[in-house]
Amino acid sequence: MRFLVLHGPNLNLLGAREPEVYGSTTLTEIDDMVRDAATKRGHEIESFQSNHEGELIDKLQGSPVDGVIFNPGGLTHTSVALRDAVQAVSAPVVEVHLSNIYARESFRQHSVLSGACAGVVSGFGARSYVLGLDALVGMLEGR
Amino acid sequence: MRFLVLHGPNLNLLGAREPEVYGSTTLTEIDDMVRDAATKRGHEIESFQSNHEGELIDKLQGSPVDGVIFNPGGLTHTSVALRDAVQAVSAPVVEVHLSNIYARESFRQHSVLSGACAGVVSGFGARSYVLGLDALVGMLEGR
Amino acid sequence: MRFLVLHGPNLNLLGAREPEVYGSTTLTEIDDMVRDAATKRGHEIESFQSNHEGELIDKLQGSPVDGVIFNPGGLTHTSVALRDAVQAVSAPVVEVHLSNIYARESFRQHSVLSGACAGVVSGFGARSYVLGLDALVGMLEGR
Amino acid sequence: MRFLVLHGPNLNLLGAREPEVYGSTTLTEIDDMVRDAATKRGHEIESFQSNHEGELIDKLQGSPVDGVIFNPGGLTHTSVALRDAVQAVSAPVVEVHLSNIYARESFRQHSVLSGACAGVVSGFGARSYVLGLDALVGMLEGR
Amino acid sequence: MRFLVLHGPNLNLLGAREPEVYGSTTLTEIDDMVRDAATKRGHEIESFQSNHEGELIDKLQGSPVDGVIFNPGGLTHTSVALRDAVQAVSAPVVEVHLSNIYARESFRQHSVLSGACAGVVSGFGARSYVLGLDALVGMLEGR
Amino acid sequence: MRFLVLHGPNLNLLGAREPEVYGSTTLTEIDDMVRDAATKRGHEIESFQSNHEGELIDKLQGSPVDGVIFNPGGLTHTSVALRDAVQAVSAPVVEVHLSNIYARESFRQHSVLSGACAGVVSGFGARSYVLGLDALVGMLEGR
Amino acid sequence: MRFLVLHGPNLNLLGAREPEVYGSTTLTEIDDMVRDAATKRGHEIESFQSNHEGELIDKLQGSPVDGVIFNPGGLTHTSVALRDAVQAVSAPVVEVHLSNIYARESFRQHSVLSGACAGVVSGFGARSYVLGLDALVGMLEGR
Amino acid sequence: MRFLVLHGPNLNLLGAREPEVYGSTTLTEIDDMVRDAATKRGHEIESFQSNHEGELIDKLQGSPVDGVIFNPGGLTHTSVALRDAVQAVSAPVVEVHLSNIYARESFRQHSVLSGACAGVVSGFGARSYVLGLDALVGMLEGR
Amino acid sequence: MRFLVLHGPNLNLLGAREPEVYGSTTLTEIDDMVRDAATKRGHEIESFQSNHEGELIDKLQGSPVDGVIFNPGGLTHTSVALRDAVQAVSAPVVEVHLSNIYARESFRQHSVLSGACAGVVSGFGARSYVLGLDALVGMLEGR
Amino acid sequence: MRFLVLHGPNLNLLGAREPEVYGSTTLTEIDDMVRDAATKRGHEIESFQSNHEGELIDKLQGSPVDGVIFNPGGLTHTSVALRDAVQAVSAPVVEVHLSNIYARESFRQHSVLSGACAGVVSGFGARSYVLGLDALVGMLEGR
Amino acid sequence: MRFLVLHGPNLNLLGAREPEVYGSTTLTEIDDMVRDAATKRGHEIESFQSNHEGELIDKLQGSPVDGVIFNPGGLTHTSVALRDAVQAVSAPVVEVHLSNIYARESFRQHSVLSGACAGVVSGFGARSYVLGLDALVGMLEGR
Amino acid sequence: MRFLVLHGPNLNLLGAREPEVYGSTTLTEIDDMVRDAATKRGHEIESFQSNHEGELIDKLQGSPVDGVIFNPGGLTHTSVALRDAVQAVSAPVVEVHLSNIYARESFRQHSVLSGACAGVVSGFGARSYVLGLDALVGMLEGR
Repeated sequence: MRFLVLHGPNLNLLGAREPEVYGSTTLTEIDDMVRDAATKRGHEIESFQSNHEGELIDKLQGSPVDGVIFNPGGLTHTSVALRDAVQAVSAPVVEVHLSNIYARESFRQHSVLSGACAGVVSGFGARSYVLGLDALVGMLEGR
Repeated sequence: MRFLVLHGPNLNLLGAREPEVYGSTTLTEIDDMVRDAATKRGHEIESFQSNHEGELIDKLQGSPVDGVIFNPGGLTHTSVALRDAVQAVSAPVVEVHLSNIYARESFRQHSVLSGACAGVVSGFGARSYVLGLDALVGMLEGR
Repeated sequence: MRFLVLHGPNLNLLGAREPEVYGSTTLTEIDDMVRDAATKRGHEIESFQSNHEGELIDKLQGSPVDGVIFNPGGLTHTSVALRDAVQAVSAPVVEVHLSNIYARESFRQHSVLSGACAGVVSGFGARSYVLGLDALVGMLEGR
Repeated sequence: MRFLVLHGPNLNLLGAREPEVYGSTTLTEIDDMVRDAATKRGHEIESFQSNHEGELIDKLQGSPVDGVIFNPGGLTHTSVALRDAVQAVSAPVVEVHLSNIYARESFRQHSVLSGACAGVVSGFGARSYVLGLDALVGMLEGR
Repeated sequence: MRFLVLHGPNLNLLGAREPEVYGSTTLTEIDDMVRDAATKRGHEIESFQSNHEGELIDKLQGSPVDGVIFNPGGLTHTSVALRDAVQAVSAPVVEVHLSNIYARESFRQHSVLSGACAGVVSGFGARSYVLGLDALVGMLEGR
Repeated sequence: MRFLVLHGPNLNLLGAREPEVYGSTTLTEIDDMVRDAATKRGHEIESFQSNHEGELIDKLQGSPVDGVIFNPGGLTHTSVALRDAVQAVSAPVVEVHLSNIYARESFRQHSVLSGACAGVVSGFGARSYVLGLDALVGMLEGR
Repeated sequence: MRFLVLHGPNLNLLGAREPEVYGSTTLTEIDDMVRDAATKRGHEIESFQSNHEGELIDKLQGSPVDGVIFNPGGLTHTSVALRDAVQAVSAPVVEVHLSNIYARESFRQHSVLSGACAGVVSGFGARSYVLGLDALVGMLEGR
Repeated sequence: MRFLVLHGPNLNLLGAREPEVYGSTTLTEIDDMVRDAATKRGHEIESFQSNHEGELIDKLQGSPVDGVIFNPGGLTHTSVALRDAVQAVSAPVVEVHLSNIYARESFRQHSVLSGACAGVVSGFGARSYVLGLDALVGMLEGR
Repeated sequence: MRFLVLHGPNLNLLGAREPEVYGSTTLTEIDDMVRDAATKRGHEIESFQSNHEGELIDKLQGSPVDGVIFNPGGLTHTSVALRDAVQAVSAPVVEVHLSNIYARESFRQHSVLSGACAGVVSGFGARSYVLGLDALVGMLEGR
Repeated sequence: MRFLVLHGPNLNLLGAREPEVYGSTTLTEIDDMVRDAATKRGHEIESFQSNHEGELIDKLQGSPVDGVIFNPGGLTHTSVALRDAVQAVSAPVVEVHLSNIYARESFRQHSVLSGACAGVVSGFGARSYVLGLDALVGMLEGR
Repeated sequence: MRFLVLHGPNLNLLGAREPEVYGSTTLTEIDDMVRDAATKRGHEIESFQSNHEGELIDKLQGSPVDGVIFNPGGLTHTSVALRDAVQAVSAPVVEVHLSNIYARESFRQHSVLSGACAGVVSGFGARSYVLGLDALVGMLEGR
Repeated sequence: MRFLVLHGPNLNLLGAREPEVYGSTTLTEIDDMVRDAATKRGHEIESFQSNHEGELIDKLQGSPVDGVIFNPGGLTHTSVALRDAVQAVSAPVVEVHLSNIYARESFRQHSVLSGACAGVVSGFGARSYVLGLDALVGMLEGR
């Protein structure tokens, strides 16, 4: 199977930006972790990051994958357009977050997208992505 | 007269995406319907779709038209920047929706843009666009 | 086809009352406009105005028409009983407003009825009624 | 004892309107059920339905009965004037609903009248009226 | 000058209904008090009570008077249609209340009509009407 | 048929606790009233009271009855876990209250459970339970 | 009888400050109007203005008068301490406003004090004070 | 390492209760799935279910484990006491849900406990527990 | 006199749990402090802690004491059932908190129980209990 | 040690004002009670009352005391400026109330100051002040 | 030109009070900074601090200056009376804050006064005052 | 030092768009004003405008400057992604607005970004940018 790992705004700064919140792992290292995990399980990964809401929607629409692991960054809390895109694609989307968003500022505790996603994994650092991959694989293999 | 038909995020998927909500007509078919209606009345149509808020703003600013028929998609409910663009252009803008947004999930019942538009047409499927064209023409011809 | 044009409280004063908000067209002139438009398309119109919520409900229930063009006036924002009547009749009801209610005082921006109507046309003066007629005809002819 | 059975807006359509919500029993059948139950217990029933808030208030004020079984329909959620009428008459009023209003749309879950009624029976279809009668009789006989 | 004294729902019960809140003066006595006061000042009074929102709107629209003293009863808190009627008539309308509505249950502390009235007098029992008359006369005589 | 009469926290104090609100009937007397009514109609009653949310859930889950008459006491306003239990058992549950909760302090006017119950009877003292029994029997006998 | 006319913050600027909202009458002219009216009716007036909440409380507590006509200015909307003072003095207090506060910005539409006052007169310019005096006299003379 | 798998109210009914929401897997099968996964990774599992908030708190406090996988059921949305217990134990707690709570009724979309947990996994059926185990193991092994 | 010292959920962990918030005194030490203070004043103390809401209600109901010092822990913010129990017992109940709850997270700043208690002492660590005892003794001795 | 006892607006009327709420003890008697209690424990008291927010701030800033016992009266619910003053002085401040503010009107149940105070004592009449003194002494002696 | 620098409650404590929030500069030093800046630009400064809302209003009203630099301290968030004073004086008022109020506790993020001021400068420590002066000068010189 | 002047959506229309709100200065003129001011003080300016949220984030991330003067336009009120970018870059960001946003429509009075910025300057037309530059320079030079 083939999966899209989609990263929203500012995630390109990972490792440098507020390490006490987001950890010191870089985005490349996260992508490598997910790719390794996928390869071990016999799956393929494509990774994409953008600070542009429109490019994330384009990517979601234009990627013929079996599932999506999506960290929408700051757009998590505001973007109905991204929610519509999630609802429009047929592949299941798992929402992941590095930090536990429910333990942060009140305006970060609500996700506009969760209601359209298959499920949510939040709070386990870079590992949230791998857990999201496992969740997708499990869901698709009907286990 | 010349009109801009502007389509927001995810409307490029029309016909494929949730047909039970949005119908099975494609965006091309809608554009054709509006163009036919305009031609019959002696007017011209330019059509544009984008998943990017910024491109929609650029287009609104850069189109020397007599009026705009605008379906802002998921940005309807969040984009103050688009509202500013509507307010900034001198041509009247009519907001249109395929589905009746006031009969949907509560977060879809409020439009940030309506207060800056000339009027709103909501709930008549692809026909909402033609009604929006008629509304614009009527308004501009002072009928 | 036969349509009911239903006008709520205070619309009998049209033309005299706050012309800067509602225009100078009278209710008779609006009824004539809609009748003309209907006749041209081969349809019939019955028109009714009342300041009484109960009479509007009676009329909705007792009119064997193919569709209703309804401007509920000030009852738009408060009447669950009218919403129930709209939901109870089998003919589709289109809600119309002369002014763009979404650009007015906050207590006028929400309609209790919209969720039960087929669609909404708001902001095009007397022309909102004709657009409502077109919407109904289009909907019923399956176009 | 003599009781008034009062039905609010749109209840005259019972049996025809949304049977999946309100059941297929007609208003006449409900009145018969309550009358039968009352007769068996040696009491008399007067029944009245109106789509007009004012007529319901007039009836409440003008009926020298021992108790009232009142289904206010859509006015349940909005009418302070009806609440005042309930508070003004000396006979106890029991509010009844066919459907369980607390399990419906959020704007239907609050009754403006309940605070002025003796009690509430909600959710048992046509039987809600008979239970309301029993409640009144029990209350008045001091059992 | 000629004034309309307009009484809303349930005010016909005055004197009988909850005298600890509304006092023991009847509506006829209030009308007499206002008529006496008007006659003394050389003015005329017409008085009208209804439990029907629609009749109150009809009366407001159809009364060629110099000013209106209006106690909207329970409709105070809910009727946008009455507010529209107040706004539509050219004569100034003074809103009066027997009890001090701002010291009562929270749902009675807000008036939907006040924003469209010339002013408000609340809390002085039957005397509120006479003060309302004085206010109108003063306003109209430009004192 | 066999019914469970379930009483929530503090209802064991009935008769002693705040008699001006809850009446002077004791819980044993209520159970006797319901049992008498049931026996007359040929049905059986089991009664259970607990101050423990968990025991109420255990009882709901573990009682193979045809219907439940449930007064959840103070848990009415807070317990999603009880609501889940009501939703999980196949037998219909009728929510009953001694006092009219909609006429009390604002935090008592909303029930978390009502949305999952078949219906609600509120405000008729000990008689609310018997009315609840009648409602259940009527519902189950398809009358 | 002896009355206190109490003016809150910024009312000393009357006539100069925003005449389109508050009129061109000065505070001295208002005091003269009230004094004239009182003298005609055989009563005495003491007048006091302060921009200090504390001085207004001191004055309320320290004035052995038969009634108070009080325009609390901007403190209307915020001062629980003034409300307590109104509640603490035995003489009745009538709240008056020059403009109709219910027709202004939303933060000016609620008065913290009204619930503790005998009544409210709002919207009749300088005449509001004289109407307040009449209300007090009427109330005290038991008319 | 040794982990506690803690199940809240009504989860003992899994497989039987609303299978369209919660799936047809029973609680025993879930416990077996988690135990198998743990054994494979060389860890031990203890499992506990209760309908009693107090017993869940006792268990949390009294279990000397390395981590907890906790599905609080209906208590998710209400129990501050459970949140305190989570905060009080030194072992990390991962909150898991079978269904995607963010896509359900509004009163189920907020968890009182999430802010005190290490992270959240929601929406993957029985697999949510295994992902929770993986998350805990990953967290504790510092990977 | 005899007093009940009642401790809610998680207070058994005092001294170990978050000492920076709750101090390092253990529950036994607090009980000793209160007992010493009581003995000095010639009174007796019974102490009880539970993590179960139901057991706290049972204890409140079943303790024939002269007064109660109650720290409801996390149930402070949610339990209407406990509030009912407080209201049902004849002995006065003083609510105490170790930390100043009004200076903590917003969901901890409101107590559901305070409205039914005689008074509240919050923020003085273990000493809050002794102050609560003094308050009770003072109240009961009519000092 | 030396303590300031600070009384806010209207507390000078104690004993006379609403004795059913605030008791019949006068402010002088309260000051005497606190002074006696302080003297017994070897401490000194200064007492100050003002109806002026500014004077209370001046006093808080200008009093080199070891602690403050503060009843802010009606300013409790509104004064951020007083909260700032409490936060600015180095001595601990204990907020005290005669009545249980959490059992009163909703606008009296929230204190703007509590979050900046060391703790709160509410509901024990004049004794609240002495308990506040004890709390301060205990806190300062590190007991 | 001549400017008034107005400081609200507790600003006299600057330098001593919470230096981590407000910096270590004293009020005298700030006044000196602004005076120096003004002198350099050929303008004059008068400075005034008070903990009394009333004195600040008096000062605003009584100062015939060309502009005002105003830090209202804790009154920022509550004083409608100060807002009225700002609106009443003809000279433009610039609101300044030492700290960035929009990054602080939620009750500090809203200013009641801003809507009546010419503009706002917030977050630059003592320099906010000098920037406020520059803003005023620029505005008045029409640059 | 080197500064970035960042302009959000629709600011390219300055001078043409709603001059009564935003003034008649064009964006080029503003950039020239800021550049002049910077050159005089020995600093350098780079200027950038975009209607695309993503390009503004890219620019913020990719500009190695000493500080940023940022007018986010309509994104001010909605973009958490921009807030994250502001928080992620190490250079201080000053938020500036041409109009006083706190005196406009309610949905424009709150900025999502302010909490992450160093400070805010609002309401001084084109001069807000120069004041922002001064604020940055002052902050960076430690004055």
